[in-house]
Amino acid sequence: MSKLKIGIIGSTGYVGVELIRILLNHDDVELVGLSSTSFEGKGIEEVYGNLYSICSLKCESAEKVIEKSDFLFLALPHGLSEEIASKALSAGKKVVDLGADFRLVNEEAYEKWYGKPFAVKELHGEAVYGLPEFNREKIKEARLIANPGCYPTSISLPLMPLLKKSLVSKKGIVADSKSGVTGAGRGLSLGTHFPECNENFSAYKIGSHRHIPEIEQNLSIAAGEDVPVTFTPHLLPINRGILSTIYCDAVEGVTTEEIHKELSNYYANEPFVKVLPLGEAVALKNVKFSNLCHISVHSDERTKKVIICSTIDNMVKGAAGQAVQNLNIMMGFDEQKGLKLLAPAF
Amino acid sequence: MSKLKIGIIGSTGYVGVELIRILLNHDDVELVGLSSTSFEGKGIEEVYGNLYSICSLKCESAEKVIEKSDFLFLALPHGLSEEIASKALSAGKKVVDLGADFRLVNEEAYEKWYGKPFAVKELHGEAVYGLPEFNREKIKEARLIANPGCYPTSISLPLMPLLKKSLVSKKGIVADSKSGVTGAGRGLSLGTHFPECNENFSAYKIGSHRHIPEIEQNLSIAAGEDVPVTFTPHLLPINRGILSTIYCDAVEGVTTEEIHKELSNYYANEPFVKVLPLGEAVALKNVKFSNLCHISVHSDERTKKVIICSTIDNMVKGAAGQAVQNLNIMMGFDEQKGLKLLAPAF
Amino acid sequence: MSKLKIGIIGSTGYVGVELIRILLNHDDVELVGLSSTSFEGKGIEEVYGNLYSICSLKCESAEKVIEKSDFLFLALPHGLSEEIASKALSAGKKVVDLGADFRLVNEEAYEKWYGKPFAVKELHGEAVYGLPEFNREKIKEARLIANPGCYPTSISLPLMPLLKKSLVSKKGIVADSKSGVTGAGRGLSLGTHFPECNENFSAYKIGSHRHIPEIEQNLSIAAGEDVPVTFTPHLLPINRGILSTIYCDAVEGVTTEEIHKELSNYYANEPFVKVLPLGEAVALKNVKFSNLCHISVHSDERTKKVIICSTIDNMVKGAAGQAVQNLNIMMGFDEQKGLKLLAPAF
Amino acid sequence: MSKLKIGIIGSTGYVGVELIRILLNHDDVELVGLSSTSFEGKGIEEVYGNLYSICSLKCESAEKVIEKSDFLFLALPHGLSEEIASKALSAGKKVVDLGADFRLVNEEAYEKWYGKPFAVKELHGEAVYGLPEFNREKIKEARLIANPGCYPTSISLPLMPLLKKSLVSKKGIVADSKSGVTGAGRGLSLGTHFPECNENFSAYKIGSHRHIPEIEQNLSIAAGEDVPVTFTPHLLPINRGILSTIYCDAVEGVTTEEIHKELSNYYANEPFVKVLPLGEAVALKNVKFSNLCHISVHSDERTKKVIICSTIDNMVKGAAGQAVQNLNIMMGFDEQKGLKLLAPAF
Repeated sequence: MSKLKIGIIGSTGYVGVELIRILLNHDDVELVGLSSTSFEGKGIEEVYGNLYSICSLKCESAEKVIEKSDFLFLALPHGLSEEIASKALSAGKKVVDLGADFRLVNEEAYEKWYGKPFAVKELHGEAVYGLPEFNREKIKEARLIANPGCYPTSISLPLMPLLKKSLVSKKGIVADSKSGVTGAGRGLSLGTHFPECNENFSAYKIGSHRHIPEIEQNLSIAAGEDVPVTFTPHLLPINRGILSTIYCDAVEGVTTEEIHKELSNYYANEPFVKVLPLGEAVALKNVKFSNLCHISVHSDERTKKVIICSTIDNMVKGAAGQAVQNLNIMMGFDEQKGLKLLAPAF
Repeated sequence: MSKLKIGIIGSTGYVGVELIRILLNHDDVELVGLSSTSFEGKGIEEVYGNLYSICSLKCESAEKVIEKSDFLFLALPHGLSEEIASKALSAGKKVVDLGADFRLVNEEAYEKWYGKPFAVKELHGEAVYGLPEFNREKIKEARLIANPGCYPTSISLPLMPLLKKSLVSKKGIVADSKSGVTGAGRGLSLGTHFPECNENFSAYKIGSHRHIPEIEQNLSIAAGEDVPVTFTPHLLPINRGILSTIYCDAVEGVTTEEIHKELSNYYANEPFVKVLPLGEAVALKNVKFSNLCHISVHSDERTKKVIICSTIDNMVKGAAGQAVQNLNIMMGFDEQKGLKLLAPAF
Repeated sequence: MSKLKIGIIGSTGYVGVELIRILLNHDDVELVGLSSTSFEGKGIEEVYGNLYSICSLKCESAEKVIEKSDFLFLALPHGLSEEIASKALSAGKKVVDLGADFRLVNEEAYEKWYGKPFAVKELHGEAVYGLPEFNREKIKEARLIANPGCYPTSISLPLMPLLKKSLVSKKGIVADSKSGVTGAGRGLSLGTHFPECNENFSAYKIGSHRHIPEIEQNLSIAAGEDVPVTFTPHLLPINRGILSTIYCDAVEGVTTEEIHKELSNYYANEPFVKVLPLGEAVALKNVKFSNLCHISVHSDERTKKVIICSTIDNMVKGAAGQAVQNLNIMMGFDEQKGLKLLAPAF
Repeated sequence: MSKLKIGIIGSTGYVGVELIRILLNHDDVELVGLSSTSFEGKGIEEVYGNLYSICSLKCESAEKVIEKSDFLFLALPHGLSEEIASKALSAGKKVVDLGADFRLVNEEAYEKWYGKPFAVKELHGEAVYGLPEFNREKIKEARLIANPGCYPTSISLPLMPLLKKSLVSKKGIVADSKSGVTGAGRGLSLGTHFPECNENFSAYKIGSHRHIPEIEQNLSIAAGEDVPVTFTPHLLPINRGILSTIYCDAVEGVTTEEIHKELSNYYANEPFVKVLPLGEAVALKNVKFSNLCHISVHSDERTKKVIICSTIDNMVKGAAGQAVQNLNIMMGFDEQKGLKLLAPAF
């Protein structure tokens, strides 16, 4: 059987090169095109030394990559995907967009948080939000996927089943998230300059991060009504991974055991979401480099708060891995193809 | 003028050696004795290579150190300070205990969290909780100081002035704290083994950390009634520092500006607590190796939460530095003596 | 076709768990048994959280693991492999020993560096040194492989082809090597305690590391005469990887270009050894988590020294990956099976 | 007594801010002016958050700073110091230049390595190389000091006494040095972007680093004849510190003990250079943040190489600390004033 021809638009950012890492070990696909505006004409192995003598593709224009591919991943800064997705779909290709352009359903919200209206309005009705654990059937039929953000994935997976079943209160949810530095991308900045970032820790964009409307959209869909969330991201001096510590209130009469049981049941057959036994706590290193999400449930007896910790690799389940999971579902491949990535023990 | 003779009981743990670092640059004191059970007879410079040819003291028994000192710092695992403090006080010495033995006023609470009753009951009435920004006058008169814990310091400094003035709600406070690894001490464990800890991040002792009753004691004193706190500590893969992200609700009608102003006013003349201008956020590296506490105030317009970030060096303002600050107050020295430690830029 | 049954003796050390990571993604084998003395009876997923719900094997005795396996990896402290290898071979199994027991041909040298004679002398003539790039034909026929040490692999690969062709002097070779902390294993020690190791750097076992006789054995075989090496290992505050900076003198009249060409030719068809173009320098991160060795060649025009840098992942090409490469060769599998591990870009 | 008025030209780079850290704790001086081209008009506490509410100086033009100061530190990229030093000296000020402009005596060598001739030739005869352990008397009389480079300091201190006494061979010296990232300054680059630098390690500028002529100048002066050195710098993924591993040959008949004794004697009365007892090895963390240089001497019995390890903080003894040491000597202050900086234990 001939392999599916894959192109990556925006291949030289961190999400792009992580897609390459995964797709090069995916048996059913062939990577045929890489686009880059900054490195057009250069071999990808010159841009990333880990690909030396492993991938001989050269960076081309987006047009050429669209032409030679059956399936496209867009890994672009927000605002740049709509036109390209439109062209690719018109040419009969399928698309997973790893940016934010198609994630928000509400144009008003998009305009408020991103400062511009939708550019290609007609596509927004069609785009499917690619969180497989909640949208698998729609993903199967989709031509265009809005791949979820990293923080929203880490917060939605533990909370959505609970809100669906009304086990936790829709009010007063606090998500305190900590992310590795790759989340900030390959662009240079003082905050990611090694001597400023190393041995440091800080919160940023407190109450104003652009993932907030996406988190609230997911939780509100699950709850069937508006769910506001207080969200604080922090920058961890490590390369990869997100750990979110989520504080919420159990609905009167609901025990921690019931919450744990609901999550365990909901994810019992999911290959990539694992709920730890009660009494254990997640550790970021146990999911790094893998497509897994680990969740642990805790309670504070004295204050009656339910505390849920979840952890993912921001670059895998939070970006490139989830995108390949969506590819697998869209194309009818085994959902775990290319994604049996084990987290190394160290 | 002859210098004050200082002894450290438990000098070879991380708090002990940090006391040595500070006291060796303190003009009004002379370090005369170091005790250690594990290293008795060894020179401290053999135990810590950074002291090579700088400090020639040898580790001795606690008894000998008490005898030759006028003033004692106890840096011992909890449960070991009461007897030693008693002996030292009987011999007319002054004592700062850096352990937990004298921090909790309520014996029942102590027994619940530490699993044993007070050993030397009569001392507990006398011990003064050494948080200078709230207890300076009592510290001046004290013979025995209970030096605050690291997490309680980082959480009490930003919240106590606000609870005193009833600007924030006494209910639903969440403190999400992240600490460097020195907080776990020099004892070996798998969790602090470099390859397990490096590039990792996790929460621990969720809802069950022994600093909880101390935090609540402080906040309750400030508020004049019981203040329960949901507290989650996390382990940062860095050596030093604590950053606490604190979530609370402003009392109806109180603005973020008023909260910021109250904190700014409260600490206006404090040498070691700095409230950043509104719009800025603390970063852990800006206080590392110093005795400073930086505080920043934020609000989430949408959810009406007030978010306060505070950061200290867990080994300095969270332990040895605050202990020396207490020494300075007790002895009538300039409060900043030996503590003009600048945080390096990197 | 039924899969080859694999057992790991000593599965809970860092080399053991790295073997598990690789073998779980190897199509032609089935992991059937894990032995551990420290964790007998425990599930491996309790010992290593990254294997949670991925590997349900329980740790058993070495005897049971030998019995149920066709092929055994021994990942034990030196001195413990000889008896176990002997038992396994007698029972008709094949063995790759990742320890040092069979690496040295010369018993006198072994006794000098390891302080004991060979325990099962008759096996030593049979054991094949498992450096595939030099011993592939012998490995194909072997029942018992001595898998190379990590430092010796990083130093032998760049130097052996040059010594074979007499392009560099046999005298005065200096190898200055730097290794990540996993090289020290999972056993706790002060030197690998996070706050002591992090942001630190030091040399250790200067001129006395047990890998010295193995390095010299390899180089001497290549050169056809004794080649002494000055070897200094250093501890890098990172998890994985070795970078060796090697200083040698080109033989009179030999240019750096010729040296580079010889290495490039020698490894032209090797899947796991890559010689970078002249003008580029290796970086450790480009091989981490992979079975690759990257080599770069440099010259110091002024001093006439040839400087060769090589880098491997100490746990992969330096241990578990090379062991699986040997398995593949011994069993006639594709040599790259299970080893198409890409180094992530970050 | 009125304090000496100090200005820093180029105050917002890493060397500049490290000078500020040290000078703010120096009793005999007053920091009166900071210049910066990038941040002119901004408060230094806005540029470096660790100085918040500690230093209220604003960045000004170089001209203004020169005018108001008695003594100037120049912390500029190479090529920019000559004109400024000339102006300052003409105005009767004293100058320590922390750049490379005045380090090389030989104009030809300077032109070869830096690509331009001396700009203010007449000053070069006057500039004194500020390595106090070898030039103290000249420094006392100097108006203009060329402060040594970081790598040259770490390599010259251990080797110069030995070359002076002809205890080691002048031929075949190899210096394999490893430096923290602050050595690369505050300027952004991909190589110092956190995710590229963290958990990585590599050599750079092999055989071509601009510190080579300075190293060779120092060693040649000590030896009384030309001493070529093979020098390879590496980038450690840590903030601070340099460790150099130096390989040389003892002159026939000279023992390691004699070499150790000569170094110990030479530095016996030096406050900042410490030779460790035979059998011990330096560790970078033992000098971080201090003005110390630690040296250890080792021998490889088999290959007859003498191996010397030295370690300094690249920002202190390798830059700002040594500059303040020169200030103290020039002004007749206690040489240790402001420099009793202890390396923290962690």
